[in-house]
Amino acid sequence: MLISCVAYQNGRKLADIEPEDIHRYLVQPDSFVWVALLEPDERVLELMQAEFDLHPLAIEDARHGHQRPKIEEYGDVLFVVLHMIEQAEGSELRTGEVDVFVGRNFILSVRTGVEKGFREVRTRAEREPELLRRGPGYVLYALMDAVVDRYFPILQTIESDLERIEEQIFAATSPRANIEALYALKQRLMVFRHAVGPLLESLGNISGARVPVTCSGMQEYFRDVSDHLHRLDQTIESIRDTVSTAISVNLSMITLQESENMKRLAAYAALIAVPTLIVGLYGMNFDYMPELHWRYGYALVCGVMAAIDGYIFYRLRKAKWL
Amino acid sequence: MLISCVAYQNGRKLADIEPEDIHRYLVQPDSFVWVALLEPDERVLELMQAEFDLHPLAIEDARHGHQRPKIEEYGDVLFVVLHMIEQAEGSELRTGEVDVFVGRNFILSVRTGVEKGFREVRTRAEREPELLRRGPGYVLYALMDAVVDRYFPILQTIESDLERIEEQIFAATSPRANIEALYALKQRLMVFRHAVGPLLESLGNISGARVPVTCSGMQEYFRDVSDHLHRLDQTIESIRDTVSTAISVNLSMITLQESENMKRLAAYAALIAVPTLIVGLYGMNFDYMPELHWRYGYALVCGVMAAIDGYIFYRLRKAKWL
Amino acid sequence: MLISCVAYQNGRKLADIEPEDIHRYLVQPDSFVWVALLEPDERVLELMQAEFDLHPLAIEDARHGHQRPKIEEYGDVLFVVLHMIEQAEGSELRTGEVDVFVGRNFILSVRTGVEKGFREVRTRAEREPELLRRGPGYVLYALMDAVVDRYFPILQTIESDLERIEEQIFAATSPRANIEALYALKQRLMVFRHAVGPLLESLGNISGARVPVTCSGMQEYFRDVSDHLHRLDQTIESIRDTVSTAISVNLSMITLQESENMKRLAAYAALIAVPTLIVGLYGMNFDYMPELHWRYGYALVCGVMAAIDGYIFYRLRKAKWL
Amino acid sequence: MLISCVAYQNGRKLADIEPEDIHRYLVQPDSFVWVALLEPDERVLELMQAEFDLHPLAIEDARHGHQRPKIEEYGDVLFVVLHMIEQAEGSELRTGEVDVFVGRNFILSVRTGVEKGFREVRTRAEREPELLRRGPGYVLYALMDAVVDRYFPILQTIESDLERIEEQIFAATSPRANIEALYALKQRLMVFRHAVGPLLESLGNISGARVPVTCSGMQEYFRDVSDHLHRLDQTIESIRDTVSTAISVNLSMITLQESENMKRLAAYAALIAVPTLIVGLYGMNFDYMPELHWRYGYALVCGVMAAIDGYIFYRLRKAKWL
Amino acid sequence: MLISCVAYQNGRKLADIEPEDIHRYLVQPDSFVWVALLEPDERVLELMQAEFDLHPLAIEDARHGHQRPKIEEYGDVLFVVLHMIEQAEGSELRTGEVDVFVGRNFILSVRTGVEKGFREVRTRAEREPELLRRGPGYVLYALMDAVVDRYFPILQTIESDLERIEEQIFAATSPRANIEALYALKQRLMVFRHAVGPLLESLGNISGARVPVTCSGMQEYFRDVSDHLHRLDQTIESIRDTVSTAISVNLSMITLQESENMKRLAAYAALIAVPTLIVGLYGMNFDYMPELHWRYGYALVCGVMAAIDGYIFYRLRKAKWL
Repeated sequence: MLISCVAYQNGRKLADIEPEDIHRYLVQPDSFVWVALLEPDERVLELMQAEFDLHPLAIEDARHGHQRPKIEEYGDVLFVVLHMIEQAEGSELRTGEVDVFVGRNFILSVRTGVEKGFREVRTRAEREPELLRRGPGYVLYALMDAVVDRYFPILQTIESDLERIEEQIFAATSPRANIEALYALKQRLMVFRHAVGPLLESLGNISGARVPVTCSGMQEYFRDVSDHLHRLDQTIESIRDTVSTAISVNLSMITLQESENMKRLAAYAALIAVPTLIVGLYGMNFDYMPELHWRYGYALVCGVMAAIDGYIFYRLRKAKWL
Repeated sequence: MLISCVAYQNGRKLADIEPEDIHRYLVQPDSFVWVALLEPDERVLELMQAEFDLHPLAIEDARHGHQRPKIEEYGDVLFVVLHMIEQAEGSELRTGEVDVFVGRNFILSVRTGVEKGFREVRTRAEREPELLRRGPGYVLYALMDAVVDRYFPILQTIESDLERIEEQIFAATSPRANIEALYALKQRLMVFRHAVGPLLESLGNISGARVPVTCSGMQEYFRDVSDHLHRLDQTIESIRDTVSTAISVNLSMITLQESENMKRLAAYAALIAVPTLIVGLYGMNFDYMPELHWRYGYALVCGVMAAIDGYIFYRLRKAKWL
Repeated sequence: MLISCVAYQNGRKLADIEPEDIHRYLVQPDSFVWVALLEPDERVLELMQAEFDLHPLAIEDARHGHQRPKIEEYGDVLFVVLHMIEQAEGSELRTGEVDVFVGRNFILSVRTGVEKGFREVRTRAEREPELLRRGPGYVLYALMDAVVDRYFPILQTIESDLERIEEQIFAATSPRANIEALYALKQRLMVFRHAVGPLLESLGNISGARVPVTCSGMQEYFRDVSDHLHRLDQTIESIRDTVSTAISVNLSMITLQESENMKRLAAYAALIAVPTLIVGLYGMNFDYMPELHWRYGYALVCGVMAAIDGYIFYRLRKAKWL
Repeated sequence: MLISCVAYQNGRKLADIEPEDIHRYLVQPDSFVWVALLEPDERVLELMQAEFDLHPLAIEDARHGHQRPKIEEYGDVLFVVLHMIEQAEGSELRTGEVDVFVGRNFILSVRTGVEKGFREVRTRAEREPELLRRGPGYVLYALMDAVVDRYFPILQTIESDLERIEEQIFAATSPRANIEALYALKQRLMVFRHAVGPLLESLGNISGARVPVTCSGMQEYFRDVSDHLHRLDQTIESIRDTVSTAISVNLSMITLQESENMKRLAAYAALIAVPTLIVGLYGMNFDYMPELHWRYGYALVCGVMAAIDGYIFYRLRKAKWL
Repeated sequence: MLISCVAYQNGRKLADIEPEDIHRYLVQPDSFVWVALLEPDERVLELMQAEFDLHPLAIEDARHGHQRPKIEEYGDVLFVVLHMIEQAEGSELRTGEVDVFVGRNFILSVRTGVEKGFREVRTRAEREPELLRRGPGYVLYALMDAVVDRYFPILQTIESDLERIEEQIFAATSPRANIEALYALKQRLMVFRHAVGPLLESLGNISGARVPVTCSGMQEYFRDVSDHLHRLDQTIESIRDTVSTAISVNLSMITLQESENMKRLAAYAALIAVPTLIVGLYGMNFDYMPELHWRYGYALVCGVMAAIDGYIFYRLRKAKWL
């Protein structure tokens, strides 16, 4: 689906144009064309390939999707793949992809799998013609910046989920639920690692020393994106580390809980076993058991048992077994 | 076994030729010879070594097999080793190897240990003469692309196996089977790591800055293979990480299950131990135990025991021990 | 909030100046301006941006805060972000940030989130004009040195906390508290890792071979800061490693404690179960049980039970179960 | 002990010579001397140092032994240390060392600690004069190739040992023996890591870009050795990884086994505890317990107990506790 | 404290000199001054700084101590920090430091915290004037070599301690002591890691390609030190790895021991519980229990109980529970 196809000159919108007319605008000086597609069909992709003279391998990637984030050069054209992450219902994450082709005088974005687009990016860019005048390289920056900035709130959700699980671990109320939650959280985190890690690696190519021509003069901007990715990366690593520790702490808490239950159990067993022995004693049928004939023998034995249990109880309570 | 031996000129098939005639075609302009062998005997290998002037160390490797994936230069000739992985019966994996020698005007592939060959690669290549005209470098790309693309569905099988195990872990029904399954899955994954890791490393040599002459102008194609390998590598690492976590989560679940069983056990023990004490009490032989002579003493004691057990049952159920 | 704004010439204080007059002093030879801000409002930041001609992306970072430590070059201007760590009440850590802009003839520090400022740094610098004469690069060193030196005592607190926890682990008195303490300590340590690691990495840029002009001739000083950070980094890694080991040792201690409790328990159970069997034996109602009619049968049985228990007790004590 | 001392010219054996005459042969064109020592005494080493003009630090290393594998250049002379590993009786490994000095026209090997020497290497080399003509560099390759090839069968023994342990782990019959076996296997593996890892690192120096003069033209051969070491290294890492997993799987199996024993235990306890309560009930001495006077009370109670136990048994069997 | 202050010329001792006269000897050709200090006071350090013109940051480091091992260049002067490790009473380690300043014609060592000095190094150096003639670079090598060689025996003590603990783990006699010992051993090992790791890293600077002028021509010697450090490093990593495995093996052994105790326990419980049920049975007060009136009923029941226990005992012994 074609979302928009606009020609810009000197940072100002020239006209909404038809995709078939793109090549006419590409030859104009100081201008570029910005096309946005959403899950395009085969025909549109072929048109774009023809208009912008895109490399078949890059088009192949865009067609199939499910690429890892990357920044590749095909001659003068940059091919950029970004993962987009959206919070779906529940705590599930929905992953989409935006593939961007950036040439000297055009930029083409192909979005798939997520709902939220880049309308606001375009609106903001059009309000700042002095920046937009820098051309497709600046638009690429603006798109990447938007994608990366959307990672932050979702990762914060994960962080606060983790904090909630931590509290439950130390409350030791629902170890089974904790394990499941930690496991699920780790899976969600993996989605971020796959989005952030490879992109960070690729970004070195356009913010470092040797820079593709389409991004020249933009290094400081791409370094800024790279810096955001570094922060995300650091947070991801922290969470990962914490999740690992939390899983092993949870195991410790389960073992500890079991150990404490066993102590309480043993305590109660003691409170019952000792009197059981005593009552068994006076159930013996010996002819000569003087206590059996005492007037208050029964009461006395009951008293003795109560006293023993009282003492055991006192000792165990002191030892914190009860 | 010789599968095929064909000479190509300008991207088009010239003729099926006899191995002994290879040297005649090697001197023709704009042409190359593509030979495919399957588990060849000594004699055939020696013939190939003579026809193509192959380095003895490379031939030695091809003869013995069981190499790690690699890409080596012997003068102008590239020697490439790829692992092929096939799903055998059950969840077992069958590993084979294809050794490829690529020269300026020839390509020789030696396949061992797997059933599926490269007939379809040849067929497709012959349908696209404008690509095949690029020579042995392109054929090498086509072979590598085919081998690597066959990894994906098998790795997906492993991924879905892992998901099934995960469900069973949290269902906590068959911990022993889970451990065995995770262990076996990790072994299967190792096969992939050995296939993907070293190849990815070696590929840097033919997709990077300094490129062997046989692959010149093909960098974008080999980068594409490299990109596929990166995706596989990432998936492998994710699965590895998840398997480790799953093993430790499974241990937590076992411990937890044990802990819960112990609580249920203790609960039942309490329900029996307390009445046992009471019946022992009235089994004592004291002369003066007034209750023994009450008309409804027996019924009363039974009632009291039932009441106590009812209360214990209520308390334990509330504490989720039962 | 403006804390101070001073112009220096040849290493000596020239005058406290108004922010609006900064540009007048910037043109004077051999002089520089040193401005310190505390949580400045938007208006002040804009004034600074105008006076010093700062890059919008850097100002953006300073405005939003929550950056990772870094050293970035925007043309001739260095933009440095440092984390400041203060001990809050309890064992909590309070993290702040100081963002420093360093140009050829100015230095601007923007501090947020922590109480303690850099007054003493300025005082000391003003006492050493021969060093201050080196200009903003030296002031940057002095600020970094101050920030990094403040890390040491706080990290030592963490180290001594860890030692206290270690003792408790081996005393095995409060496993639950130990786990919580180790977990919290690891979180505190994470704050340091985030402060030290990225800064260490960035410092390579100004203490290594290619040095920004504002820091030229200062490499040995920045290498000194780098060296301090290396020491911190090493300590952090040691503590991390020790915490991991301590968590697993704690689990071992819990399991061991449980195992020892079970043995003690079993020992007491044996001391009770055996006499219980014997008293049951003599509670049987057989007509012909000669012992029942012995004069000292009762006493004898009691004696036998005591003897058996004594023997069991002796054996178990020898086996260290009691 | 001097094993052999031979002069070669143009790849053919010239003569067995006396160590004292070495210097005479060193001056002849196209020839080199190959000396093999076994645990030499001080005097022989000094003679060699004098004849070949060896660096004192290298001689020092050869004298003391217990070096890590390495390849060092002392001027034009290469000093190579290799670990030799032999299967001793039992599953123990015996580690020896061979120190090799390689100059432009000589090669000296000093072997210690292992039984098997390099006679077959020399025999094979002498059968291939066209290769031996390449000089000491080729002999070095042949020695390294022999040493490295001897690693493979021993590592395979370790691999098959590991497979046997794996089977026992899942059979769960001898957890204690498994732990000990895994631990011992890991120690044996360490011997290989120390032999392979450092050598692989050092080999980069003589198979890479800048090559010592004694090895020039031999890069493909040393790359072959390097490739073998890579395969060993990969196998070692796989085994290491598997051993770690196996240790934790074994712990899981122990815990699981314990958990299953506890369930079986609890089941039997239930089968005994319930009848014990019932027989206690009818051991009570109440005056009015009508059942006691029934004709078939005793039989009935026995029947009821059997029925209850039957039911419990059926339930527990269904729950797989028995 | 000044230990010695000696001037050397052409590798021979010229004279013991007063610290105040150092500058006179520094101007003499082919000579250098070697000063050794032990925990010097402020005044001596200032004198040295003045005599040798040392950089204030380096002097600052030497004054404060507690540096990580490092090799830094301040202009032509090398500043080297080494950790010294001594076996204190018990298994504790005492860590000291030696800071060395090396210039073109002087070497100054400042030792703190350990007892053993470098007298023997000086004695040996003075016996080998042809080496000492090489100047301060050689003395630096001799000091480093001495420091590093002293690490070996202490690390061997740790290795043999570890072996003793390993035996105890598999003997399973004192799990608690094992944990404590492993933990303490790991802490001791950390001392070595901090001494060896950073030094190894720094040594690259003086044994690699670009070498400071004071060490020129000495690369082979420093490579030798580096090689020793590599061996230490490898041993440290092996021990670390083994300690981690040992901790988890110890946990396995504890769990296993617990599991075996539980089985033995359960076995004894069975031996008691079954007869207890039987004696309870014949304690019932039914009117019609024919066995009670049999002549040998009592004996029979005792026999039956013994037989049952005998059978249970036989079964459990066969199952290795007893």
